[in-house]
Amino acid sequence: MYPKSIKDLIEDFSKLPGVGEKTAERFVLFLATQKEKDGILSFSSHLKEMTDKIVKCERCHMLTEDTICDICKSKERDTETLMVVSDSKDVFVFEKMKTYHGQYHVLDGVIDFSKGISPEDLNIDSLLKKVASYKEVIIATNGTVEGELTAKYLKALLSDFNLSITRLAYGLPVGSDLKYADELTLNKAVENRQKY
Amino acid sequence: MYPKSIKDLIEDFSKLPGVGEKTAERFVLFLATQKEKDGILSFSSHLKEMTDKIVKCERCHMLTEDTICDICKSKERDTETLMVVSDSKDVFVFEKMKTYHGQYHVLDGVIDFSKGISPEDLNIDSLLKKVASYKEVIIATNGTVEGELTAKYLKALLSDFNLSITRLAYGLPVGSDLKYADELTLNKAVENRQKY
Repeated sequence: MYPKSIKDLIEDFSKLPGVGEKTAERFVLFLATQKEKDGILSFSSHLKEMTDKIVKCERCHMLTEDTICDICKSKERDTETLMVVSDSKDVFVFEKMKTYHGQYHVLDGVIDFSKGISPEDLNIDSLLKKVASYKEVIIATNGTVEGELTAKYLKALLSDFNLSITRLAYGLPVGSDLKYADELTLNKAVENRQKY
Repeated sequence: MYPKSIKDLIEDFSKLPGVGEKTAERFVLFLATQKEKDGILSFSSHLKEMTDKIVKCERCHMLTEDTICDICKSKERDTETLMVVSDSKDVFVFEKMKTYHGQYHVLDGVIDFSKGISPEDLNIDSLLKKVASYKEVIIATNGTVEGELTAKYLKALLSDFNLSITRLAYGLPVGSDLKYADELTLNKAVENRQKY
């Protein structure tokens, strides 16, 4: 029923996370009825450009347009602290915070046997090769079962090195109401209570 | 903080209706971390293709890839009934229904003085030029203030012709619960009650 070029595009948009057919239709019809065509043409070339230009940093596996990413190259970063994250997205989240000044290492996933992801599928070899030059490694995988499993696995591997190994703190979200906290979080918040 | 090619693309996505910066980021990082690049390249070329190919039907102003759209060209459609809609999107909605077999006319908007849209900005001249060949015109603009105003305006213009002018029925949505109906709808449902 839709002209072919519209149908093709609806299919592309509906592959995006959280986008169903209805939403994809709304996006495409919005674009198809734009009077200004330039915006859509540059949208199209931006998609191609990103695909051509974005690679992974050879040192930390973070998304970048260069061989070595800006963070790894920077002389203003603390080169003795390394934060290990599961995903490039997490680096962007921490960078928005603007208070962490160390370097990163992106694992590109977490150990998840139910999905057939074992330690060999993650960027662990390259981590072990470079880790000796750091003083502290912060393991910043998610607080999920798989994130915890990966954290434990890394801790075991890293304990062979002369390093301080830390993990992100669990506790109450800032500004949150006690009555909405789940028991495990509340338990951690009491366990990790701090001098006030 | 994001590499330029990612930042550009986030900006493009965040122009889509209902997409904020966070969602746009999620879309782009999803695409940037895809292992298969082919899908994104064809997404890019589909965007360009649509922009190049989609035009408006010279007869009904509906989005199409030809000079005259499939519906206007079809010999299987009822050429005596014309449905006037405000937007190409509405045609797709009615076509999904598969029970309407007449033709369409797309106004490309509704009269809305608050946005500076007056009758001259709509495809009304071309409607008046072709309307004499029809027996019935169904005015299918939305039930909003602007849709009603446009419907009234068209009715006045069309009453010069020897035509049956109809308007979509107001009433309860099928499968709906009475207690959720607003008063105006309920009022219309009683007023337009039908033999059972």
